[in-house]
Amino acid sequence: MLFHVRMDVRLPHDMPPDKADALKKIERERAQELQRQGKWRHLWRVAGHYSNVSIFDVSGADELHDILSTLPLFPFMDISVSALCRHPSSIRDDDT
Amino acid sequence: MLFHVRMDVRLPHDMPPDKADALKKIERERAQELQRQGKWRHLWRVAGHYSNVSIFDVSGADELHDILSTLPLFPFMDISVSALCRHPSSIRDDDT
Amino acid sequence: MLFHVRMDVRLPHDMPPDKADALKKIERERAQELQRQGKWRHLWRVAGHYSNVSIFDVSGADELHDILSTLPLFPFMDISVSALCRHPSSIRDDDT
Amino acid sequence: MLFHVRMDVRLPHDMPPDKADALKKIERERAQELQRQGKWRHLWRVAGHYSNVSIFDVSGADELHDILSTLPLFPFMDISVSALCRHPSSIRDDDT
Amino acid sequence: MLFHVRMDVRLPHDMPPDKADALKKIERERAQELQRQGKWRHLWRVAGHYSNVSIFDVSGADELHDILSTLPLFPFMDISVSALCRHPSSIRDDDT
Amino acid sequence: MLFHVRMDVRLPHDMPPDKADALKKIERERAQELQRQGKWRHLWRVAGHYSNVSIFDVSGADELHDILSTLPLFPFMDISVSALCRHPSSIRDDDT
Amino acid sequence: MLFHVRMDVRLPHDMPPDKADALKKIERERAQELQRQGKWRHLWRVAGHYSNVSIFDVSGADELHDILSTLPLFPFMDISVSALCRHPSSIRDDDT
Amino acid sequence: MLFHVRMDVRLPHDMPPDKADALKKIERERAQELQRQGKWRHLWRVAGHYSNVSIFDVSGADELHDILSTLPLFPFMDISVSALCRHPSSIRDDDT
Amino acid sequence: MLFHVRMDVRLPHDMPPDKADALKKIERERAQELQRQGKWRHLWRVAGHYSNVSIFDVSGADELHDILSTLPLFPFMDISVSALCRHPSSIRDDDT
Amino acid sequence: MLFHVRMDVRLPHDMPPDKADALKKIERERAQELQRQGKWRHLWRVAGHYSNVSIFDVSGADELHDILSTLPLFPFMDISVSALCRHPSSIRDDDT
Repeated sequence: MLFHVRMDVRLPHDMPPDKADALKKIERERAQELQRQGKWRHLWRVAGHYSNVSIFDVSGADELHDILSTLPLFPFMDISVSALCRHPSSIRDDDT
Repeated sequence: MLFHVRMDVRLPHDMPPDKADALKKIERERAQELQRQGKWRHLWRVAGHYSNVSIFDVSGADELHDILSTLPLFPFMDISVSALCRHPSSIRDDDT
Repeated sequence: MLFHVRMDVRLPHDMPPDKADALKKIERERAQELQRQGKWRHLWRVAGHYSNVSIFDVSGADELHDILSTLPLFPFMDISVSALCRHPSSIRDDDT
Repeated sequence: MLFHVRMDVRLPHDMPPDKADALKKIERERAQELQRQGKWRHLWRVAGHYSNVSIFDVSGADELHDILSTLPLFPFMDISVSALCRHPSSIRDDDT
Repeated sequence: MLFHVRMDVRLPHDMPPDKADALKKIERERAQELQRQGKWRHLWRVAGHYSNVSIFDVSGADELHDILSTLPLFPFMDISVSALCRHPSSIRDDDT
Repeated sequence: MLFHVRMDVRLPHDMPPDKADALKKIERERAQELQRQGKWRHLWRVAGHYSNVSIFDVSGADELHDILSTLPLFPFMDISVSALCRHPSSIRDDDT
Repeated sequence: MLFHVRMDVRLPHDMPPDKADALKKIERERAQELQRQGKWRHLWRVAGHYSNVSIFDVSGADELHDILSTLPLFPFMDISVSALCRHPSSIRDDDT
Repeated sequence: MLFHVRMDVRLPHDMPPDKADALKKIERERAQELQRQGKWRHLWRVAGHYSNVSIFDVSGADELHDILSTLPLFPFMDISVSALCRHPSSIRDDDT
Repeated sequence: MLFHVRMDVRLPHDMPPDKADALKKIERERAQELQRQGKWRHLWRVAGHYSNVSIFDVSGADELHDILSTLPLFPFMDISVSALCRHPSSIRDDDT
Repeated sequence: MLFHVRMDVRLPHDMPPDKADALKKIERERAQELQRQGKWRHLWRVAGHYSNVSIFDVSGADELHDILSTLPLFPFMDISVSALCRHPSSIRDDDT
């Protein structure tokens, strides 16, 4: 099942750079592992923002929440989630 | 270049069903033609809404505007546009 | 899978009462049929509003969209959808 | 009487993990006790958010406020409250 | 139980004056009857707006909804509802 | 002259409990004194919120501002003010 | 007593020009009469908008409401009202 | 040229009272000097808020920005600016 | 003096195409005339919207309002206006 | 390709003045270098705000993001981005 997720990262200004870098490194490894598993299907940067637009392909809301809530940057993100379904005009079989 | 577009359709309640059906039919044909051309890369329905989330792959803002502003339902849609760029953590080469 | 849905009905002021009554009657029958099927699990009125808060138990976003988009009042409702998952503090097994 | 409550938790980033864990533990025990008493009738997690949607069954607004305002996380939550009543299309007797 | 209600009236511009006057007359009679019954405890006009702020004293959300949803102007009002409870600093016994 | 005021208290999370308690104690004494003087005519708690809805009966905007801006919690409150006038359908003489 | 009022006029697109002109003419005469009486103390146009910012000097909220609610364009305006008081840094005696 | 400006002051809760008092004192002197020069034409307090509504009479946007951005409290204010022009119904020659 | 203006056009769905075309033709001629006069300095289309972003170079707010309020599409536009001034980091002399 | 960007700077109140000055100095040098390269085509100050409105002329969203995300003040800015295209009524060849 597909979910559209936008994440806006807002790191506290007083977070030590070392801690921020460490969090980002783990976040990146986790994101790439989830992409390789096919669960984080698309990942784009929104131009001009410390934000991404993503498409997740998971078994349901529980798996989505497990993934998002264990991301290292989760406590520092505003997240919006929309459940997606097949569009009747879509011709692309893998967009489901 | 990629753009993230969300379209929310709001047909006037007093539009004759015949006219609405005709508009939707042309809209669908146009959407499928643009998908075959590779310009309308992804197209999903947002669950519970007469809305879609789409990814366009166009030469730039002018081509995007030409496409969107000539859709039959353009006068009846609220549209939001975000320019996308490659995410540093993406492992998918075709998401650019 | 559970979804939380709020529906705010906004009937056009110039809709003939006969048409409104007919739509509401079909809406009611459809809502009760879906409740009997176990898909529309909870249905509450929000006090002071022509609105409801509902919990749907469906196979996924596609089934939810099929249900909502074929409700007779769908063209006249503002709808918001949130995917739900089990809360770690919940003690109620049927809230999943 | 039923109330629909959404709670969005926003812990300060500089709260010591020990203090956060202690608060969450008491919150959980309190939530489960209130569920066992039948006052916190439903409790769901909103996917992708540190938030819950809940249904309370209490004697009135005073009891609801007593419950919510004494939750350990109350100072760190954005809360929205809606009074619910029986929906005329509901077929479920215990949703009142 | 007390509820705080704000009602903003928005009559359609094309409603015939006769119809508007008839609705307002019935609304007034209904409002005064409910005041005499003690259910509509306070009623103020918000300066500069076709709006009121009201305090209702009812048995619960069901009675509140019955009252509000049968007001003649209900289809033409934006309504917001807040459940009230006794304030710990209040010295007035009848504000409960 | 009557004013409708809603106050939402937002104490900084790092305020020492002693200071918070002292502020609340003075706030309470001040609120009760103003009620005894007839200037703070009504005071209700909004269920689920650290907020109140109040009706002030003062000589005008200057007196209202003097009262509100000298409350101990004033620096920590979001306040909204609406001027009230007699509603033509009101039957209660003391609501003016 | 002074009130700050902003009025945004939104005439229905299908109002006959004759009716609109007649309403505006009466509105203008009424505005000028109120200015001559000293009650509508200031009146400015907001550049780029069919809107005004005004300062009223009236006996209280009742007189303000009487004035605003009887303006010919009242049914077609979004109005916001703020009660003003003397600013401690003001040196102008007539701004009270 | 006239500008309508609303300033909402939000002092950080942890600013030392001495610093706050010093800033306010300079702010006041600067405001009064600008009033004497005729540039800060009107200055009102918004009842219930640490806010003011002001009318500036300056040569243009550059002078307005010079004035506002050098106020001692500028870093702590939310400011909204509207350019004003003569209202066709105004009878007051000095409101231009 | 420079103003930044965004105009969002919302034509009523029931406007006859002939009338819409006539309005747009006059709007275009007027826009081009103002560009030739140097008053409408920049004019861009916002991709995906029936909207423009413009920079006006006028003598002040009165001239800006005269221009905007006499555009044929003025009654059908949502307009936002910001006064601009020279940026201290700008190296372009004609951006003032 | 052109982008319209608005940047609102919100420096933390507790940033040491030395650090703020250093950031602003580098920001200014970077802004001027990008203007000389023709990539930051226009740069205006919004009167009354610590904000700018800018027009960027870049190869696409990736270059825009590279520029914006490496500005020294990027972590302290709220940024909004709109893709621009040629307006059909524009007579200025360099506004593309």
